[in-house]
Amino acid sequence: MKKVVLMMVCLMSVVFALAQSKYPTADVEKHDVAILVIDMQNDFVDPRGVLCVAGAKATIPTIQDLIKYGREKNWKIVYLIREHHRSGVDVDAPRIPLFTKGKGYCVPGTWGGDIVDGLKPEKNDLIIPKTRNSGFFGTQLDLVLRRMGVKTVILAGTQYPNCVRGTANDAMSYDYETVICTDACSAKTPEVAASNIFDMKNMGIKCISLDKVRKEY
Amino acid sequence: MKKVVLMMVCLMSVVFALAQSKYPTADVEKHDVAILVIDMQNDFVDPRGVLCVAGAKATIPTIQDLIKYGREKNWKIVYLIREHHRSGVDVDAPRIPLFTKGKGYCVPGTWGGDIVDGLKPEKNDLIIPKTRNSGFFGTQLDLVLRRMGVKTVILAGTQYPNCVRGTANDAMSYDYETVICTDACSAKTPEVAASNIFDMKNMGIKCISLDKVRKEY
Repeated sequence: MKKVVLMMVCLMSVVFALAQSKYPTADVEKHDVAILVIDMQNDFVDPRGVLCVAGAKATIPTIQDLIKYGREKNWKIVYLIREHHRSGVDVDAPRIPLFTKGKGYCVPGTWGGDIVDGLKPEKNDLIIPKTRNSGFFGTQLDLVLRRMGVKTVILAGTQYPNCVRGTANDAMSYDYETVICTDACSAKTPEVAASNIFDMKNMGIKCISLDKVRKEY
Repeated sequence: MKKVVLMMVCLMSVVFALAQSKYPTADVEKHDVAILVIDMQNDFVDPRGVLCVAGAKATIPTIQDLIKYGREKNWKIVYLIREHHRSGVDVDAPRIPLFTKGKGYCVPGTWGGDIVDGLKPEKNDLIIPKTRNSGFFGTQLDLVLRRMGVKTVILAGTQYPNCVRGTANDAMSYDYETVICTDACSAKTPEVAASNIFDMKNMGIKCISLDKVRKEY
C-alpha cells in the first residue's frame, strides 16, 4: 500500500512539473526593438552596381551609428537582402529583362549581392533574403520578430519608395510600431524621399532622424 | 473467357475516363482581367465620411465607365472594402484612437461602411472585406484571382498612397500585371496622386488613363 502511494505521489509530481513548464518560445532571446537594414548591397549602393540608388552610399555612416546604438541597447540587428536566382525566375516581373537580357542583380555569390563594406553583419545578426519589395513577403521575418518579442521595428536602408516603404507598410499591417530612421534611409532624389516620408507620416508611420531615435528609444 | 475480357474492357474504360477528368478548378468561371474597386465607401468618399478623401467623389463617373467597359469585356469586378469591428481590434494600429475615442469608420451595417451610391455591386461581382491597406493582406483575394485565371488587375478607387498603392505593390509581388487606371483613382491632393504615380511607374506598374485602358485591353 505504501509503495502504491509513493508511486502516485511521484507520478503526480511529474504531471505537475510538466503542467508548469513554460512553452519553449519563452526561452529564445528577447528583444523589444529590431533594426531592419534593407538592401544595403553593392548592386544598390555602389556606383558600379546594377541598380545603384544615388543617395544610398552617403547613408552608410548613419546606419553604422544606428547599429552601434542598437547593439548597446540590446536591439536585434536584421539584414534584409535581395537574393535572386540567375535565371530571374524569382524576381519582380517588371525586372525580369534585367536577368534575361542582362546579368541580373543581387545574385548570391556575386559582388553585387554582397552587403556593402562597412555594414558587414556580426555573428548574432540575422540575415533574411527576400525576393520582393517587402521584407515580409514570402519570408520568415514576421515569425522571427514575433518569437523574439519585438514590438518596434526601426528601418534603415534603401530605397524609400520600394523596399523601405513596402516593408514599412507590412510592418504596420502586422502591428509593429514602425519607425523610419530618416537619415539612415535613401532614395534616388531628395524629392522622392520627401514625398514618401510625407505619405508614410500620414499613414501613422513615425519618420524621425537618428538623433530623435536616440532620444525616444 | 468472354466475360473476363468484357469486364477488363469496362474497368479500363473507367480508369481512362478518370485519368482524363479535369481538376475541378478548370470548371469555375474564367477571366483574364479583374477590376479592383478599392474602398469606395461613404466614410472615404462622402464629405460627411470619417476619413473623406478630397478627390474620391469626382472619380465615381470614371469608375462607372471603367466597370461598364469591364462588363462588356467579361472582366471580373471585385470590390475591396474596409470592414472593421466597432471595437477597433482589427484596424491598423495608428487608427485605433478613431475607434476608442470616436465611433470608428467602415463598421459593417453603418452608412459609412456602405459602398457609395452609383457603384453598387451587381449579383456576380465579388466583395472582399479587408482590414489593412493592401487588399491581399489577410484576405482570399490572391486565391480567387488565381482560380479564375486572372493575369491582369486594373485598380480603381481611393486613396493613392495607402490602399491603392499597398494593393498595387502586393499585386505586382504576386506576379499580376498591375495597372492603375489613373483617372479612376484619387488622393487628398493632386500632388500626392502625382508622387505616387511617379513611384509606381518606376516600380514597373502601368499607370494609364481610362482612354488608354480601352485602347490597350
